Amino acid sequence: MQEIEGGVTAPLGFKANGVIANIKGHNTTKKDLAAIVSQVPCTCAATYTQNKVKGAPLTVTKKHLKNGQAQAIICNSGNANTCNANGIEIAEGACDLLAKELHMDPSDVVVASTGVIGQPMTLDPFEKHIHELVSGLKEDGSDDAANAIMTTDTHKKEYAVAFKIGDTTCHIGAIAKGSGMIHPNMATMLAFVTSDVDISREMLEMMVHDVVNDTFNMVSVDGDTSTNDMLVVMCNGLADNKKIVIKDKHYQIMKEALYYICESLSKGIAKDGEGATKLLTCNTHNARTLHDAKTVAKSVITSSLFKAAMFGKDANWGRILCAIGYAPADIDITKVEVSLSSAQGSIIVCKNGAGVPFSEGKALDILSEDEIVIDIDLHDGDYMATAWGCDLTYDYVKINGDYRT
Amino acid sequence: MQEIEGGVTAPLGFKANGVIANIKGHNTTKKDLAAIVSQVPCTCAATYTQNKVKGAPLTVTKKHLKNGQAQAIICNSGNANTCNANGIEIAEGACDLLAKELHMDPSDVVVASTGVIGQPMTLDPFEKHIHELVSGLKEDGSDDAANAIMTTDTHKKEYAVAFKIGDTTCHIGAIAKGSGMIHPNMATMLAFVTSDVDISREMLEMMVHDVVNDTFNMVSVDGDTSTNDMLVVMCNGLADNKKIVIKDKHYQIMKEALYYICESLSKGIAKDGEGATKLLTCNTHNARTLHDAKTVAKSVITSSLFKAAMFGKDANWGRILCAIGYAPADIDITKVEVSLSSAQGSIIVCKNGAGVPFSEGKALDILSEDEIVIDIDLHDGDYMATAWGCDLTYDYVKINGDYRT
Repeated sequence: MQEIEGGVTAPLGFKANGVIANIKGHNTTKKDLAAIVSQVPCTCAATYTQNKVKGAPLTVTKKHLKNGQAQAIICNSGNANTCNANGIEIAEGACDLLAKELHMDPSDVVVASTGVIGQPMTLDPFEKHIHELVSGLKEDGSDDAANAIMTTDTHKKEYAVAFKIGDTTCHIGAIAKGSGMIHPNMATMLAFVTSDVDISREMLEMMVHDVVNDTFNMVSVDGDTSTNDMLVVMCNGLADNKKIVIKDKHYQIMKEALYYICESLSKGIAKDGEGATKLLTCNTHNARTLHDAKTVAKSVITSSLFKAAMFGKDANWGRILCAIGYAPADIDITKVEVSLSSAQGSIIVCKNGAGVPFSEGKALDILSEDEIVIDIDLHDGDYMATAWGCDLTYDYVKINGDYRT
Repeated sequence: MQEIEGGVTAPLGFKANGVIANIKGHNTTKKDLAAIVSQVPCTCAATYTQNKVKGAPLTVTKKHLKNGQAQAIICNSGNANTCNANGIEIAEGACDLLAKELHMDPSDVVVASTGVIGQPMTLDPFEKHIHELVSGLKEDGSDDAANAIMTTDTHKKEYAVAFKIGDTTCHIGAIAKGSGMIHPNMATMLAFVTSDVDISREMLEMMVHDVVNDTFNMVSVDGDTSTNDMLVVMCNGLADNKKIVIKDKHYQIMKEALYYICESLSKGIAKDGEGATKLLTCNTHNARTLHDAKTVAKSVITSSLFKAAMFGKDANWGRILCAIGYAPADIDITKVEVSLSSAQGSIIVCKNGAGVPFSEGKALDILSEDEIVIDIDLHDGDYMATAWGCDLTYDYVKINGDYRT
């Protein structure tokens, strides 16, 4: 497997584009309308937020993906199209517009929106800019699409890999937007994954479910599960590999590639969390169950107090112990060992549930890096899990104190 | 019922004191060691944190309260005495020192600590200052004790009421410390409640359980359930009322008084949450179950995004809907109505789960006050609940970015 350029347009047969449709405001210079289109219909699998308040686009996309098939994605940023009385109308209208322009069935279009919840919305910007969006679709259009789906993200998240299935070179590409309201209970935020692999719907759904549980569902920026989370994977089969229809070694190869892509996006989202200055990676080792391992890792990277301490480069490990203690997991606190690591080295701060002496100077050096790893060894079983998060900073408060106004 | 001065020393037969024992640092000018003492043994009820990481003082206090009796409390701030190898030794040592000075049994002493977790601790400061602490016990000592248990609190929390049971005037007084790591899963933080009411242990335990569930357990500052939460209620019976032994009208009168005290402390803790500029009160109305009502109210006041919006005076009600949507409650989002109120008036921002037009100017006026009420009507049942929280501010990040160092 090899990382390559090209994002969602790296796989064969995909084009993309992103334009300024003024959804983010009348004078915006930011792209806010994106499309991703496959040359041929794709086998699709998707996951959605578990929030009971769901954006209208999710309702429409779910309906369209009932048959497991789609050929295009339309996505706007700047308005979540959620809690609007005319939400379904807008979401269906966007699909209709793209389908008409591309001469395909509207039910083959996936629609997504991200931005402020509960803001009035009309189809006008879609109508005005749909032709520009479609006529500009191009084989190197992933960048434009990635930019157009960003809200408070400061970096676009775009990854692609090439890998072999038998003798056939295959590709997976992806873009995502994250930043705030990120505490996936699948999916998270918006992630669009394209591939030219030929795979059955059943195998793709199984793979997506497993990979998402270990990647996107292990990310938290602020504990708020969004209303618009959606991940869609589209496979158009143009790589012409021997079709994957069982969980064989080819399935495993593609799963590894998809995992790599989703893990990269997840880390990218955590690192670019609203206001974040640090990526926090928390590994739980030797837990009694997988659930315990996951819940402990997520509890630590979700703790506001711990996140603020990381911003302050403060090795306040008591807050890690506290967050372990209130995680809904079966643990023996007297066995817990905690260490902190970064490119500057590693220190053990706690053994057998109690503090051990460490150099504050060394701790400061370690925590001054922008990627920090917290290893928690429960010494009590065989399961491990990883969760990703970020620090809590002044800028998180600033961004969210006046995000809407 | 009437609010009165005097805090924990308002009830008959209680004295208190607080001194500088240098636990907060060698050059501190802040009080950090407190004692509350009853003239006679008290019937006691207590609740403790559900965090699996528990401060050593909780272990010792639980043991001492097995018989439902205590006569004195010793509490330090500046060190949580949690995750220390010698924690039990220190907590028992503190009880022994106070008991010796007061000529009582150490098992009649409640011990509590609050401060940084996992910092080394010795008995020295207790030994050096125990005589000063005890010799200074006084009938108007509640203020000193309230000050001595504060950490990052900016205001002391101290309340007392007088009320009649039959013809007998009775009293309840209390002090508490809150501020950070506040997301009670009972108890919360530290709260010490004194009373001169004569009541059986069984009745007191039942009353404390019920009141705490509706007050302290409905507060969140930062979602972090502390390791040292403890609430202790001590009743010495000196009011000489007809002893409360069943759930009669006298029980209800005392329960109302205790509720008033605990609600006041809870609101005081939320309003003085670390860095907070606003008290947020969220009422859920017409829920299908009490659990649903509580979980919705708590979800809203716990949302980082909503809390940051309140700091920014931004009527971003979509975040309220989002938090309602991810609460583990059985709700019909299409029935939800939300309004925002303060001393400046009230506006409805959402009806039937969708936005309604409102004046942004009026919203700004309402949100510029320092006490904001969020009313959520689920239009779907008969249950209501209230939760209290605070906004998320730059100062929360500042305080917790360098709390320890």
